[in-house]
Amino acid sequence: MSNEDFNKRLFKYLDDHQKDYIQRLSDAVAIPSVSAWPDHRPEVFRMVQWTKSFMESLGIAVELADVGEQKLADGTKLKLPDVILGTYGNDKLKKTVVIYGHLDVQPAQVSDGWDTEPFVLTEKSGKLYGRGSTDDKGPVISWLNVIEAYQKLNEPFPVNVKFVLESMEEYGSEGLEDLLKSLKNTFLSGVDYVVISDSYWLGKEKPCLQYGLRGICYFFIDVESSTKDLHSGCFGGTIHEAMTDLIAVMSTLVDDQGRILIDGIYDEVAQLLPEEAEIYKRITFDVKAYSAEAGVDKTIQQDKEQILMHRWRYPSLTLHGIQGAFDGVGCKTVIPRHVIGKFSIRIVPNMKIATVEKLVEKHVKNVMEKRNSPNKVSVKLEHGGDYWLADPNHPQYVAARRATVAVHGIEPDLTREGGSIPITLTFQEQTGKNVLLLPIGASDDGAHSQNEKFDVSNYMNGMKVMGVYFQEVARV
Amino acid sequence: MSNEDFNKRLFKYLDDHQKDYIQRLSDAVAIPSVSAWPDHRPEVFRMVQWTKSFMESLGIAVELADVGEQKLADGTKLKLPDVILGTYGNDKLKKTVVIYGHLDVQPAQVSDGWDTEPFVLTEKSGKLYGRGSTDDKGPVISWLNVIEAYQKLNEPFPVNVKFVLESMEEYGSEGLEDLLKSLKNTFLSGVDYVVISDSYWLGKEKPCLQYGLRGICYFFIDVESSTKDLHSGCFGGTIHEAMTDLIAVMSTLVDDQGRILIDGIYDEVAQLLPEEAEIYKRITFDVKAYSAEAGVDKTIQQDKEQILMHRWRYPSLTLHGIQGAFDGVGCKTVIPRHVIGKFSIRIVPNMKIATVEKLVEKHVKNVMEKRNSPNKVSVKLEHGGDYWLADPNHPQYVAARRATVAVHGIEPDLTREGGSIPITLTFQEQTGKNVLLLPIGASDDGAHSQNEKFDVSNYMNGMKVMGVYFQEVARV
Repeated sequence: MSNEDFNKRLFKYLDDHQKDYIQRLSDAVAIPSVSAWPDHRPEVFRMVQWTKSFMESLGIAVELADVGEQKLADGTKLKLPDVILGTYGNDKLKKTVVIYGHLDVQPAQVSDGWDTEPFVLTEKSGKLYGRGSTDDKGPVISWLNVIEAYQKLNEPFPVNVKFVLESMEEYGSEGLEDLLKSLKNTFLSGVDYVVISDSYWLGKEKPCLQYGLRGICYFFIDVESSTKDLHSGCFGGTIHEAMTDLIAVMSTLVDDQGRILIDGIYDEVAQLLPEEAEIYKRITFDVKAYSAEAGVDKTIQQDKEQILMHRWRYPSLTLHGIQGAFDGVGCKTVIPRHVIGKFSIRIVPNMKIATVEKLVEKHVKNVMEKRNSPNKVSVKLEHGGDYWLADPNHPQYVAARRATVAVHGIEPDLTREGGSIPITLTFQEQTGKNVLLLPIGASDDGAHSQNEKFDVSNYMNGMKVMGVYFQEVARV
Repeated sequence: MSNEDFNKRLFKYLDDHQKDYIQRLSDAVAIPSVSAWPDHRPEVFRMVQWTKSFMESLGIAVELADVGEQKLADGTKLKLPDVILGTYGNDKLKKTVVIYGHLDVQPAQVSDGWDTEPFVLTEKSGKLYGRGSTDDKGPVISWLNVIEAYQKLNEPFPVNVKFVLESMEEYGSEGLEDLLKSLKNTFLSGVDYVVISDSYWLGKEKPCLQYGLRGICYFFIDVESSTKDLHSGCFGGTIHEAMTDLIAVMSTLVDDQGRILIDGIYDEVAQLLPEEAEIYKRITFDVKAYSAEAGVDKTIQQDKEQILMHRWRYPSLTLHGIQGAFDGVGCKTVIPRHVIGKFSIRIVPNMKIATVEKLVEKHVKNVMEKRNSPNKVSVKLEHGGDYWLADPNHPQYVAARRATVAVHGIEPDLTREGGSIPITLTFQEQTGKNVLLLPIGASDDGAHSQNEKFDVSNYMNGMKVMGVYFQEVARV
C-alpha cells in the first residue's frame, strides 16, 4: 500500500495550491497552439517553449527532437514542432515510467458557437472553460504539478520519468512514430511502463482505467468534374456535376441506424464472447447522462450494453464534411469543380486497415460503375490507425486501481474508448511494455467541441491519483 | 438607319482611347466590392462613390437611394450599399432608356485558383483578367464611356437615360425590388425601354440578344442532431448523425443525367412546340467550344439543340454545398451538430415558385418519413426568383439588332440565358415596358469563376454597339 501519511501531506499541498494550478493552466490555454492551422504554427512553437521552461524549472532535463517538415496541400513546407523529450531521474534501482501527452489543440473560434473566448480560461461553477483545458494541456500540466509538489514536500520521487510531449496530436501526430522508432534502443530502452492521460471517464462521477481503443481509417473521396467552378445558371443541366456524384457515393456508406453498408466490413469484427457481455453489464454507465452529454434526445441504441458496445467494440462510420463545395452562409450559385468528401470508419478488433481500405475502394468503384458519369472519382485512405487492446489485469493497471481507490474511495471501472490515440499502439510496440490509459477528465468535457472544459475537481483529484500512482507503480 | 458618318467618328474616338478605358476598368476592379463578404462592405461603398464621381463628371445627375439594412446570420445589421439613380437628359421629345447594372462582384481570392491577383486587372493576350471585369463593371463603365465619347465629339445625345446601378446583385439584390416598386410613379414613370448588359454571348465570336432567363429556387435543408459538435471516436455509432440524414436527403434530388427526381417537378414545364425546335436549330453554337469553356471532357447531352434546351428551357438542380460540416483541408474527426445543405433549382416557363416550393417540401418530408431518425430536418425556400421571357421581335430588339449589324456586320443570334437576373422581371413589371438584354462579354469570360476576364475586343465593340444602339432606339 502507499504511504498514507505522505498521501495526506501531498493532498493537502495540492489543495492549498489550487489557485496556482488554475493560473498555470490559464497561461497554457492562452497560447492558441492549434496544429491544424498552418498560420498558427508559431503559437505551437511558443507552447513548446513554455512547457520546456516549466520542465527545466523542475530540474527535468529537456531535449527538443526535430521531427522535420510538414508538406501542406499547396506544396509549401512548414516546420513541425519539436517533440519534447524530458528525463527526470536516472536511478537504476527505480522503475522508469514514460509519460506521453500533447501540447497542441483543436481549432476553436467564438463563431463556432463558444460561449466564452476559447483561448481565455474561464471559470464558471467549478468548470474551467477553454480550448485544450482537458485535451490535453490540463493532464500534461497535472503530471508536472505533481513532480513540483513532491519537490516542495522534500519527498524522494519514487520512479524515474521520461516525458514524450508532442504538438501535432490533433493533426495526425506527424513525425512522432518515426521518432519513437528511432528512440527504441536509446531514450526508450529499459523503460518499464507507459502511461497516457489523454482520454476521459465514461461518466461524470466515476473514474475508470482504459484498456482498449478503436482505430480509425480516414478516407477522402475525390471527385473532379471540370477545370473550373461554374455558374449553375449558365451550365446547370448540361454538366455532370462533381457534387452529384460525391453525394451519391457518400449516401451509400451508412444507414439511418449507423450500420455500415460497405460489403464485408463486419467480417473481421471479433465475435462477441459470452463473458464479454458480462463485463459490459457490470460497468456503471448512465444512458440518460450520456444522451445529455451528447446533446441528443435519443441515441440509436437504448440499453447500456448496446451503447457501450457500439462505442467500443463495433465499428462506426461518420460523414465529416466536404472540402471544395460552397460552405459559407447565404446562397452561392456555384457548381464546384472539385470536391473532396471526408468520412472515417472507427475500427475494432480484429479489423485490418488493409482490408478496410480494400473494401472501401471496391465499394466506391462499384457505386460509380453503376453511375453514368465521366467524372474522375477516386478514394484514398488518408490516414489509418490501428485499434489497441491491453491486458487490464497487468500490474500497472493494479497500481492505478490502488491509486484511484486511495483518492476516490472506489474501484475504477475498466473500460475502453471509442476514439483512437494511435500513439498508444506505437508506444506498446516500441517499448514492448504495458501501456496504461489513465483518464482524469470527465465524459462531458467536450474535447474537440465548442465549450471544452476541465472540472476543477477533476484537475485536483487527477493530480492526487497521479501522485499516488507513482508510489504504487514503484512497488508492483 | 444610323448616321454612318457619326458612327465612323464615334468608332475612331473609342479606338483612340482604348488605353484610357482599360485604365478606367482597372481602377474599378481594384476596388474589391464583394457584396457577400460583410467585412468588405466599406469597399462596396467605395465603389459606389467612385462611380458616382465618374457619373457626375459627365453631367449625370446622381441621387443615392438608401435601401436600408441587411440582417446577417448572426443577427447583426449591416447597411446596404446605396443604389445609384442617375438622370442624364430630360428632353420630352426624346425617348427615355433605363440602364441597369451592378457594381458589386463575386468573392475571389488567389487561393481559389486564380492565376493572377483577382483585384488587379491584368492584360494577357488581349484579355483583361480580374474579378468584376466582365460581371458587371466592364459593361457599366462601357455605357458611361459612350456618353463621354458623345460629349467629346459634340454630338447631341439621342435619348434621355436613367441609370439604376445597384451593389448587392451578387447577394440577392436585397432592397432593390422594393426601391423599384417605390419609384414606379416617379423615377420610372414615362420611361420607354429598359436595357441591361449583365450577361454573355452564347459563344466567343458571335453576338446575341437575349429574350429569356431561367428563374431560381434556392433551398436550404437544415438538419440538427445534437446541441454540440461531437467527437466521432467517443460518440460514433450511437448517435443519429445530422450529416447522415442530410447526405441521404441530398442524394435523392437529382440523378446522374441531371434529371430532377422530385415528384411532379416537370409537370408545369412548357411543352416543346414544333417551331421552337426550329429556333434552336438555327442558333450558332459550338458544342466543343462549350465543353472547353466548361472545362469538361463530356457534357450530359451531346447535340447542340439538346444542350441549349437544357440550359434555357428545362429546369436543372445543383447541389452547391454544405454549411456547418467540416470543410477544411486535412482530417477532422468531428460529428457536426448542425448542417445546412444547399441546392437550387433553375426554373423555366411555366413553373411556379410556389409549386416548386410545395413539391420540394413534400419530397424531403417523404424521404425523412422513410428514415428512422429523430433529427430535426426542415427545408426552406431561401430565395426564389421567377423566370423571364420577352418578345424578341419588339422594336427595341430590332434597334439592337441594327446596332449589332453596324458594328459586327452580322445579325445577332436571338437566345436565352440559363442564369437568372431577377431584376429583369422587376423592371418589366414596374415599367410595363420592353426589357432588352444586350450582352457584350463572351461565353468564356468566367463570371463567378476563377480567372474571370473581359476581352479587350469585346470591351471596344461593346461600346460601339451601345453607341449605335442609342441612335437606333431613338428612332424606332
